[in-house]
Order: sequence, then structure tokens, then C-alpha cells
Amino acid sequence: MAKIVSLVTGGAGFIGSHVVKHCLALGHEVVVLDDLSGGFEDHIPAGAIFVQGSVSDEVMVTSLFEQYKFTYVYHLAAYAAEGLSHFIRRFNYNNNLIGSINLINESVKHKVKCFVFTSSIAVYGAGQLPMREEMTPMPEDPYGVSKYAVELDLKAAHEMFGLDYIVFRPHNVYGENQNIGDKYRNVIGIFMNQIMQGLPLTIFGDGEQTRAFSYIDDVAIPIAHSVNTPAAYNEVFNIGADKPYTVNELAKVVGGVFGVTPDIKYLAARNEVMHAYSDHSKAHRVFGEGTGISLQEGIERMGEWAKVVGARKSKEFGEIEIYEKLPQGWERKIDQPVPATAG
Amino acid sequence: MAKIVSLVTGGAGFIGSHVVKHCLALGHEVVVLDDLSGGFEDHIPAGAIFVQGSVSDEVMVTSLFEQYKFTYVYHLAAYAAEGLSHFIRRFNYNNNLIGSINLINESVKHKVKCFVFTSSIAVYGAGQLPMREEMTPMPEDPYGVSKYAVELDLKAAHEMFGLDYIVFRPHNVYGENQNIGDKYRNVIGIFMNQIMQGLPLTIFGDGEQTRAFSYIDDVAIPIAHSVNTPAAYNEVFNIGADKPYTVNELAKVVGGVFGVTPDIKYLAARNEVMHAYSDHSKAHRVFGEGTGISLQEGIERMGEWAKVVGARKSKEFGEIEIYEKLPQGWERKIDQPVPATAG
Ligand SMILES: NC(=O)c1ccc[n+]([C@@H]2O[C@H](COP(=O)([O-])OP(=O)(O)OC[C@H]3O[C@@H](n4cnc5c(N)ncnc54)[C@H](O)[C@@H]3O)[C@@H](O)[C@H]2O)c1
Ligand SMILES: NC(=O)c1ccc[n+]([C@@H]2O[C@H](COP(=O)([O-])OP(=O)(O)OC[C@H]3O[C@@H](n4cnc5c(N)ncnc54)[C@H](O)[C@@H]3O)[C@@H](O)[C@H]2O)c1
Repeated sequence: MAKIVSLVTGGAGFIGSHVVKHCLALGHEVVVLDDLSGGFEDHIPAGAIFVQGSVSDEVMVTSLFEQYKFTYVYHLAAYAAEGLSHFIRRFNYNNNLIGSINLINESVKHKVKCFVFTSSIAVYGAGQLPMREEMTPMPEDPYGVSKYAVELDLKAAHEMFGLDYIVFRPHNVYGENQNIGDKYRNVIGIFMNQIMQGLPLTIFGDGEQTRAFSYIDDVAIPIAHSVNTPAAYNEVFNIGADKPYTVNELAKVVGGVFGVTPDIKYLAARNEVMHAYSDHSKAHRVFGEGTGISLQEGIERMGEWAKVVGARKSKEFGEIEIYEKLPQGWERKIDQPVPATAG
Repeated sequence: MAKIVSLVTGGAGFIGSHVVKHCLALGHEVVVLDDLSGGFEDHIPAGAIFVQGSVSDEVMVTSLFEQYKFTYVYHLAAYAAEGLSHFIRRFNYNNNLIGSINLINESVKHKVKCFVFTSSIAVYGAGQLPMREEMTPMPEDPYGVSKYAVELDLKAAHEMFGLDYIVFRPHNVYGENQNIGDKYRNVIGIFMNQIMQGLPLTIFGDGEQTRAFSYIDDVAIPIAHSVNTPAAYNEVFNIGADKPYTVNELAKVVGGVFGVTPDIKYLAARNEVMHAYSDHSKAHRVFGEGTGISLQEGIERMGEWAKVVGARKSKEFGEIEIYEKLPQGWERKIDQPVPATAG
């Protein structure tokens, strides 16, 4: 059998590092392209080739495709702070759209067999619930617009050039290797970070908003294996857990895992949807039912890891374009909690 | 009354130069930003200030907004060769999306009163006919995706920052100042160009495909005046003519205006929709019924102009990114006709 060579962009990041691990287990040769803007080199599993660089760097991307003959491209690199995207519009489109287009261009030219793309439930906008793949997307922020534009461009590239693709729309993923020092997103990481610093947990609103938190294995395994699943080709999948929890319940589970009864500080409610959940029946049909790992067990696993590595500071975002209405704490070195976002 | 200062991007182009003229007539001070990639400096009406530069040039755009306090932005600059956009994906998104985002960022920061954007019927995709504004867009090529992404981003900017906008989706516009030497688009210009060179008119398919060709005044006047129409704010409008003509009928009208019975060379049909027409009732309700200029009269006016200026060569597009499936003639200096596209 010919050697399978996979490019995983964002492979130093949270989901990407797990995808790399599962691709290596499948016997792929794996090249990671990551600019380390949000990832960590030591999260890249041993055995992968690491190239530091940006997907927005056309010259870099072109030469990488010339050097390696990629069978598959898993494109996970993105700056995913959805709420911040209003204030960094140009950066968002350069990084998340133009970067993707560079990869699509080269994938067409080099006849990549499948282009796997992590979109987001942000493409749906505040539409009907549960979010289903056949609903028409209506993204409401630059992050969601850029993800949807890439989905549409992939479809156009498929129809014009026959480039096969698979789109995943994950939803509130958590687990080992997540950047728990990121102040812009990931409520579970923020909670763990606060507990480890002896701080109260901060919750926007009354904490009765619900989210279906998805353990990483239920997302990264189907993503890695999707290229071997013909029924997945040229399809879009919601991916993640089904069972919704309130943020209050989540706080209890996280506190329990760290052996504390956390203090909770309720802050003014933010402009966010109360209940966000996706229908995953399509993914279950095509990829099976998932690991069945419960929130309790997933948080335990993540907690074990977090206790060892401790909090990691995310790099401060340095290029705010619009300061008007920028939420307090997002522009300075203050650790302000942010609500759970679609990510 | 305070001085009204309007920025018209693409003001050296076809529709843009007419919008400049009507804005000047409304008493605006007008600044044109155009990189002359597709426009002509001598099309810019006297009285406007011309700045040569690209909307994709962030530094240029930022300094322009600092120098002038724009009341309104009319954003028409785009590379509009829809069919070519598959082969120049990165260029398309850089020029048409990132360029627009630069303008949106600055318009938010400088509190522009209204951002007028020429989108395209390309956002609809091959959906139901007639195309109506309340239909959900499904663009099918990078040009349409970039236009739709800008529409969505404008809506997000309106909701987050209060930037008012008006979106127009024009449809097969023709008239004076059109680049009739452009081999990538504009069937009317291509016909005139062929007649003036004594060549047969080339038609893809049987010529029974229909389009509602729109005379420039029915598009440029509503665009220029829209900022004075409160009911238009934060709305999307199809704009153009209602009456569809077959391409065969069109060939007769153009021939008649030039006093010839044109030879027609029928070529293999291309992958294009047979009948494309928009519903314009919303525009009529808000902007009135239009000039009532018939196809015959519009073509006469355009023909008078074309006979004087003759054919102008469009610059060859120099940065093809994907050569696979590139239609013959699009990469070389051969004058190949192209079918009427959404533009
Ligand atoms: N975590 C979630 O809940 C979630 C939900 C929906 C979608 N997603 C998507 O999944 C993907 C992975 O997200 P994640 O949670 O692992 O985030 P992450 O920040 O941990 O990983 C993203 C990685 O991409 C890298 N990166 C960013 N911009 C880059 C660029 N221009 N060039 C090269 N590398 C770049 C970062 O350094 C980082 O390692 C993203 O596309 C994200 O939008 C995540
Ligand atoms: N003509 C039509 O039938 C039609 C239909 C639908 C939409 N539109 C839209 O209307 C607008 C005007 O189209 P047109 O037919 O007048 O085309 P045009 O090519 O005559 O005008 C476009 C102008 O924009 C300029 N330009 C292009 N890229 C630029 C950049 N990066 N920076 C600065 N200037 C730049 C060109 O030099 C040109 O003068 C476009 O946005 C187009 O997408 C036109």
C-alpha cells in the first residue's frame, strides 16, 4: 500500500494534537503546520514532523505541498475566539479564510484525496434548535462568516475540480491539551484555571444556560478516521455530545473533580443563546455512537492532566482593530472570564 | 448643512463612474479610490478627487479615512469576473472580501453614516426563480461566496456597532463607460466589440437563454440616491430591469443599432442557467419604478458611446492560481467570447 501522508494544520493545538495522535495510530505519516499562535510545540505527538509557519503564508504553504505529496489535509488551524472576531475582522478573515483558501488551492493542484475541515456551530447563527446539518447557515459574527465561506468554497471546489471534502461542526469540546489559560473562550478551562488559583468561578447570568460539552475523543477520533469513511465524503457533520448540562451543573462537576465546593460569582448576563445544542444523528449514523464517556469521566481525565501541567497563559491578542464595545478585560492583561461560546 | 463627503470605491469603473456622477449632482464632495485594474481614469467625472490605490491596501484605506471624514461609503470596487473566480480564489477573496473588510473596519471606527455595497445576484446560486431578496443565498463560486460573506459581515457590523448599510444585487448591467474589451464578461460589450471588428457574434448554446439586461441609469441612480432613502437602510435590494430577452433577441437589437445584420456563430453550450431573472418589486416600492428606458433605447445610447470610444482592451488577468479546467482563451491573449454571467 502506498504511504499515506497527512497534513494536520493546527496540530499543536487542542483538537489538532489529538487528530495527529489518531492519524499516527492509523499509520499515516503526519506533517504538522502550526504557527504556535495558540498551540504548544510539546503537545505535538512524537512521530509527527513539525513545521512552524502560518497557513496564511502562501509561499510557505505552496512549498510544503511541493515538498510532501499529501494524501489528506486535515485543516484545523484557526483563531477560534468567536466573540473577539468582531474586533479583529481583518485578522479573522486573513487567518481563517485566506489561510484556508491557500490550502484549498494547493489541494486542488496536488490532487489531495480528501480535505477535512473543522468548521463550527457558529455557522448556524441563532436559529432554530436543535441545529441540524440541513438547516441553512446564517452566521452572525466574522468567525462564523469565515467558517461558512470556507464551507461554501470547498463545495465549489468539489464541484469544479472534484476535490473531496468532509466538514465537521464541533461544539464546546474539552479535554487534555486544551489551553486552559485562554481568557477568550472555553468555560471548562476557565473554571479549572480559577479553581487552581483559589478564585471563585465566574458565571455570566444565572448559570442556567445549557451546553452539550463534548469530550475530545468523541470529536478527534471521527475526524481522524473520516477519510476512511466513504459515506462521509462531501458531507457536513455536527459532531460532539448530546446531553446538555447547565453551566451551574458543570461548575459542580469541575469542583468535585478538584475536591472543592467552588464559590460562584454571578456576573451580569451576556448576549448569548440560553440553550445551544446540535442534532448528531447524522454523525452517529456514519461514524457510530462514540465513546460514551460521561461529563464526569471526561472532566476527571482533563482534570488529571490539568493538575499536572497547571494553567498555561494564552498569548494576549495583540492586534485589536476596533476598540469600540470591546468587552472589558479583552484588551488588557486582566483575567476576565468569558462565557461559553460556540468556539 | 454640513458638507457631505462620499467615498466611491471603483469610481473609475463602469457602475462606479455613474454613481460618482449622480453623487456629484446630489452635491456630495466625492473621493474616488480605484486601482485602475479594471477602470479608466478618464471615466471619472470631473469634480471628483481621484486617489489611485487598492481597497486591499490597509495602510492606504486607513490613511484615506483619516484624511477625509466620509459621510457615506459607496463600495463598488471589485474584480467581478465571476466565472474566472474559481481559478483565482485567493486573489478573489483578497480583493473582494479583505478589501471590503478594510472599508468596514474604518467605517465603523469613523462612524460613517451609511455603507452602500454592490453585491451581486451571484449570491443566490442556481436556486428558485425569480430570485427574491428573502430567499436564502447559496453562492456557488468564490465570487458569489465573497459577496455573500461581505453582506453577512455588514449585517454583523450593523448589529454590533450600529453601522448602517444598504446592499444592492445588480443583474447584467450595461451602458456607457462599460469595458467592452473585457473578454471575461458582459455579453453586450462583447457583441459590440465583435461588430466593430467585423467579426461574427459568438453565442454559447442556442441563444434562447434569457437575461434581463439593465440599463445603467436604472442601477446607478438608485444606488447614489439610496443614502437619502431611510426605508432602504439595512436592507438588501435586487436592482435592474424586469423584462427578459433571449441572447438571440439581444444580438438583433445590437446589430440593428450598428446597422448590420450580424452573423452568428453558435458554440457549444456552457454550464450556465437558462433563465436568470430577479424580482424587483422591493426596489420599486422603495426607489420608484425607474427610468423606463427600453433595451432598444439603452443599447442605442451605449452604441453611440461605443462608436466614439471604440473597443478598449481589458488588462489580461495575470495571476491565474489554478490552470486545471480553465476555459480556453482565458489564460492567453486570444479574444474568446464568454457567456453572459451574473457579473
Ligand atoms: N474547541 C472547540 O470547542 C471548537 C468548536 C468548534 C470548532 N473548533 C475548530 O476546531 C479547530 C481547532 O480548535 P481548537 O479548539 O483545537 O483550538 P486551538 O487554538 O487549541 O488550536 C488551533 C491551532 O491552530 C494554530 N493556528 C492558528 N492560526 C494559525 C495559522 N494561521 N497558521 C498555522 N497555525 C495556526 C494555533 O497555534 C493552534 O495550535 C479550529 O478550526 C476551531 O475553529 C473548535
Ligand atoms: N456590471 C454588472 O452587471 C454587475 C452585476 C452585479 C454586481 N456588480 C458589482 O458592481 C460593482 C461594479 O462593477 P462594474 O460592472 O462597474 O465593474 P468594473 O470592473 O467596471 O468596475 C470595478 C472598478 O473597481 C476597480 N477595482 C477593482 N479592484 C479594486 C481594488 N482592489 N481597489 C480599488 N479599485 C479596484 C476597477 O479598477 C474598476 O474601476 C462590482 O462590485 C461588481 O461586483 C456588477
